[in-house]
Amino acid sequence: MDQRVSEHAEVLVDWSAQIEAGDDVVVQVDEGAHDLGVAVAAALGERGANLLATYGSDEMTRAYLHGHGDDFDADPAYEKTLYERADSVLILKGRRNTAEGSDVPGERRQAYRRARQEIREARLDTDWVSTQHPTRAMAQQAGMAYDAYREFVYDATLRDWTTLAGEMAQLKELLDAGETVRIVGEGTDLTMSITDRVAVNSAASVAYDSHNLPSGEVFTAPTATEGEVTFDVPMTVDGTRVRDVHLVFEDGEVVDYSAAQGEATIGEVLDTDAGARRLGELGIGMNRGVDRITDNILFDEKMGGTVHLALGRAYDACVPDGAGNDSAVHVDLITDLRESGRLEIDGETVLEAGQFRWEE
Amino acid sequence: MDQRVSEHAEVLVDWSAQIEAGDDVVVQVDEGAHDLGVAVAAALGERGANLLATYGSDEMTRAYLHGHGDDFDADPAYEKTLYERADSVLILKGRRNTAEGSDVPGERRQAYRRARQEIREARLDTDWVSTQHPTRAMAQQAGMAYDAYREFVYDATLRDWTTLAGEMAQLKELLDAGETVRIVGEGTDLTMSITDRVAVNSAASVAYDSHNLPSGEVFTAPTATEGEVTFDVPMTVDGTRVRDVHLVFEDGEVVDYSAAQGEATIGEVLDTDAGARRLGELGIGMNRGVDRITDNILFDEKMGGTVHLALGRAYDACVPDGAGNDSAVHVDLITDLRESGRLEIDGETVLEAGQFRWEE
Repeated sequence: MDQRVSEHAEVLVDWSAQIEAGDDVVVQVDEGAHDLGVAVAAALGERGANLLATYGSDEMTRAYLHGHGDDFDADPAYEKTLYERADSVLILKGRRNTAEGSDVPGERRQAYRRARQEIREARLDTDWVSTQHPTRAMAQQAGMAYDAYREFVYDATLRDWTTLAGEMAQLKELLDAGETVRIVGEGTDLTMSITDRVAVNSAASVAYDSHNLPSGEVFTAPTATEGEVTFDVPMTVDGTRVRDVHLVFEDGEVVDYSAAQGEATIGEVLDTDAGARRLGELGIGMNRGVDRITDNILFDEKMGGTVHLALGRAYDACVPDGAGNDSAVHVDLITDLRESGRLEIDGETVLEAGQFRWEE
Repeated sequence: MDQRVSEHAEVLVDWSAQIEAGDDVVVQVDEGAHDLGVAVAAALGERGANLLATYGSDEMTRAYLHGHGDDFDADPAYEKTLYERADSVLILKGRRNTAEGSDVPGERRQAYRRARQEIREARLDTDWVSTQHPTRAMAQQAGMAYDAYREFVYDATLRDWTTLAGEMAQLKELLDAGETVRIVGEGTDLTMSITDRVAVNSAASVAYDSHNLPSGEVFTAPTATEGEVTFDVPMTVDGTRVRDVHLVFEDGEVVDYSAAQGEATIGEVLDTDAGARRLGELGIGMNRGVDRITDNILFDEKMGGTVHLALGRAYDACVPDGAGNDSAVHVDLITDLRESGRLEIDGETVLEAGQFRWEE
């Protein structure tokens, strides 16, 4: 087995999920994630943790949803209790075909999702971590050769996380102390308030309240957004390609929008509820192992030198007074500041043309 | 997908497990059983049942056991509760390498098994059904080409179960009314009592208290065994090949044994405890779809015209007064009456040279 698969498992189990002897661990193994599943099982055995493997099969889910009607039992107790009693859930993503769910009616998928909300919440209440095993399907989605994609995934995942967490702590400190953020770039001049908000140092570990491996971003919850922003990184939103989304904010709300591609999808997102027109997140990517867009938000939003903003729900961790933006959606959009543009905190430039102040 | 895979799933879900809308179903998908998993998911969706898929991976189990020490937590609650709350467990066997566990120390495997006894019992308390998806590894173990092996598996599995259940009911009636069974063949002349015992019509359905698909046997729990028996069907017992096992019974207990191959293994089985020297089961195979030995007990013991006897534990269902033989083991051995030999109940021949009385 590729030595990097074992290293990935070790980082996941030790740094990210902080597994200890006696922990009750659920490992979700996607169809294409078998090899990582074996490496994770070895690591869990060595730590003396307990292991129950579930099978994350897109083909089974599609077949099940095709067969089923639109009425689903709400949160079947046998599955809910499993997650309520688990200490950790490790999600080993590894799809074999990213289009597998493409012919399942959206309404049925949403009905299934709605019926499983408490199960989802029980999972989110554990020390869960989601990670990506490189598959050919994900390489294809990224427009990359399989071998090159594996290289990319491990470069992004097998970081010196302790050092990166230290770097990110500097940015968190600036954001926690700051009052105003301004982002300037081509088609972008946006100002927002971060007064009384707390930034999260997302260092790919539950110890940092960070549940993605890889991670490598610092994020907070802005308010009172004013100005315009252009998201030049192509994204997939609700299964639709969007490109060059342009938003205009007044008094914290989107008052105008356009897009070179996928404009209708952005319109639908904005119309979801009142909170969908406000920002829920400002995130700053700091993972230098992510050096290209691969059409996978787990990686894209962590890219060092990019900034992402999310329409919709704010994370509780950023809002000590509990008055964060509420919405049914949380849609990330990314703007690339690696070539040009800058981010200022209280008038001081922190990121310019892809370089953080402390990198100079 | 092969149409037979869908038919297999339908028989499993409807006839065997009797799944209904709202049932909470756990589906264990082995590494090589993915296609059957997809078909079962479709069938469960159509029935309106709930689905949780677990992953039965020999490679993960081996890696976990290699990493782990010999001390296991007893019956982790998260897994035990899952089975306690489930209505049905469908076990889709499909190994990709039957030797995968060959380098795991036996003591560690046993320690793991012992630590999971309550989990196992919780599973056995559900409407569980175990079935076999044909894999190349299982074809290899059977010494058959993959295509021919698939043919074999579906011939054995896609039976007219209603008709077979009716035929088996005739044999059950004879056994329930009978007092003595005698088996005569080459190297075999064995007599046993079945007075006050109840036979099980194992018709591959939980409705018949039968948990294997395929099934097709009628079994009961004999006592007071006298005489000798030769098991001419080669078997694998505890991972060791045994051949031509010969047992001599006096007063219900084995007093002498020999084997052309694997004699030491038979000796170890007999030395397990006092109950291991007595018979726990007399089973009569009636599945005409099983027409050859494939070194897989799920099929071998169901072969029409064969008789199997098990050393060790008796099934409770056969013993209304609760005084069945007790033992930590239950080891099946098979004698082939298809070519010659006969089985009598109270002096009347019921099976001779492979033909049941009612088949003439």
